[in-house]
Amino acid sequence: MERGKRITLKDIAAKTGYTINTISRALKDKTDISFETRKNIREAAKELGYVGDSAASSLRSGKTRTVAVIIGDISNLFFGSLVRDIELAMQEKGYTIIIYSTGEHTEWERKAILSAYSRRVDGIILCPVQETRDNILFLQNLGIPFVLVGRYFKDIQSDAIVWDDVKAGELAAGYLIGLGHVNILYIGGPLYISSGTDRLQGYRNAHKKNGIPVNENMIRITNITAGASSEAILQVLRESLPFTAIVAFSDLMAYEILYTLEKHAKNRYSHISIASFDDIREKIMLPVNFPSIRCIENESLVCVDILMQKMHNNWKNKPAVRFLDVEMRYS
Amino acid sequence: MERGKRITLKDIAAKTGYTINTISRALKDKTDISFETRKNIREAAKELGYVGDSAASSLRSGKTRTVAVIIGDISNLFFGSLVRDIELAMQEKGYTIIIYSTGEHTEWERKAILSAYSRRVDGIILCPVQETRDNILFLQNLGIPFVLVGRYFKDIQSDAIVWDDVKAGELAAGYLIGLGHVNILYIGGPLYISSGTDRLQGYRNAHKKNGIPVNENMIRITNITAGASSEAILQVLRESLPFTAIVAFSDLMAYEILYTLEKHAKNRYSHISIASFDDIREKIMLPVNFPSIRCIENESLVCVDILMQKMHNNWKNKPAVRFLDVEMRYS
Repeated sequence: MERGKRITLKDIAAKTGYTINTISRALKDKTDISFETRKNIREAAKELGYVGDSAASSLRSGKTRTVAVIIGDISNLFFGSLVRDIELAMQEKGYTIIIYSTGEHTEWERKAILSAYSRRVDGIILCPVQETRDNILFLQNLGIPFVLVGRYFKDIQSDAIVWDDVKAGELAAGYLIGLGHVNILYIGGPLYISSGTDRLQGYRNAHKKNGIPVNENMIRITNITAGASSEAILQVLRESLPFTAIVAFSDLMAYEILYTLEKHAKNRYSHISIASFDDIREKIMLPVNFPSIRCIENESLVCVDILMQKMHNNWKNKPAVRFLDVEMRYS
Repeated sequence: MERGKRITLKDIAAKTGYTINTISRALKDKTDISFETRKNIREAAKELGYVGDSAASSLRSGKTRTVAVIIGDISNLFFGSLVRDIELAMQEKGYTIIIYSTGEHTEWERKAILSAYSRRVDGIILCPVQETRDNILFLQNLGIPFVLVGRYFKDIQSDAIVWDDVKAGELAAGYLIGLGHVNILYIGGPLYISSGTDRLQGYRNAHKKNGIPVNENMIRITNITAGASSEAILQVLRESLPFTAIVAFSDLMAYEILYTLEKHAKNRYSHISIASFDDIREKIMLPVNFPSIRCIENESLVCVDILMQKMHNNWKNKPAVRFLDVEMRYS
């Protein structure tokens, strides 16, 4: 095979003597071509190194067999696992995925949606930034099948696969209350993110159910980029707030908080109770353990399943949020 | 804008009265179209919601402005950071990336290369599985510009960006020897992977330089998938091997080893010395610290830089391995 030359149907025609039409039909395994001919052509194609051309064929079919996955940050362990699971499931169905990180910026998210659209992806899986509603409305208008993952809009109807985050927050705070804590710090993500609102609601519910008043000063809302929860806990230390336990918005934030406490207030907080969300230790063994909330179902598979049905017009349901059940995994 | 309808140049023509040729040239900002006309057309395009069509335009130009990144496992923190940095650098240049995980399987790697080729990517960044040489030879024959990252072939000339892994291994083992250790366990990746061979060579060099004989029983070669180093250290515990320090092949493996020691031999090894590679704590704050080797240069940027030059035929150098300098980051 000549280096770098793309083998075409013409080359197979030159080698075998069949017409391009016959070759094309044979490679698609059409039964009007005899078995013997199909076999000859397939063998010649293999010998020449023919691998097809999905770019040209997708332009004819209008399908690219590509799905865009737009998430916050691929280097975040939680998103990394999510994307890996989506990739494996999609690969099995003959799709490849394009990755975009929004960095939790609305502008980057818009650029990602535009780029995905102009690349004619068949579908989009999006973990929305949610700072504004513009991008989701824009995406709806484009008419590309899409599914939201991890977050949903309370006032815009669209398909979304999310955790039952109210229950998740209730489980985390309830666990710490069960240990006897009453001064439980909450360090969580922005309230414009659905899981931010819902987990905090769960934290409040757990207090209410146990007859413990919520001290609003114990609630610290940060953004969810690296370093933010470290800042938040340092501020709490400066205020000498008398907390004895912490609900952290994610395992990554919990590790950041523990790291910061260890560095700046060694010993004083070495036996602090902490509970968080994501259960990344299911995927990576880390020597520091604490309880974490995990999803009982495989959200990637649910996501891929619904998106596949939407892409093939087999999804007859109205746009809806699907809440997946959660449980606490103890350390 | 009608829901789901793709706006074409025709729609802009219908709205503005200009010919499709004029509109096309105006949108490309060709200066033979008057500034006023370009402005009118751009505004009409914006109003209609025109976003171009990179699928069609790439088929005309032969360029897809897409790069495939083929790595071991996107949910591995090290690969996750690498891919994020590549994505950001590529995005800035107007490229999007397609992700493939090989899972360190030769077959999956071949499938990924084939899929990338059939999608007409402009270039490939590959962290090769290296079990065999078939896939790299196959890739060379395809004629797509590519760069290897993290690993290289000693007997096949191709562009590769790797750490100076011999030095890295020497630094890690040398550090532990400097602390007074002589029984240093080495738990590392397969020897068919270049970094596996080179880091072990560095471990041997450090011993030689310090006049310490290498106990071959201290060298444990494992595969690099999750759980493997946990198995390896359990085996070492069963053999009651008298080690006092460990060189681990990656931070992830170091965490796995510490986790396993903590779980199965609590206290006995709580003050073990460990050194590893990747310095993932630069990217994620974790409450357990140990020295780790990191690369001084940004390998993602070097990779993207060379690949961009190759894709634009500006790279006149012969295929070569580029070794990036490393240093130890202390805990």
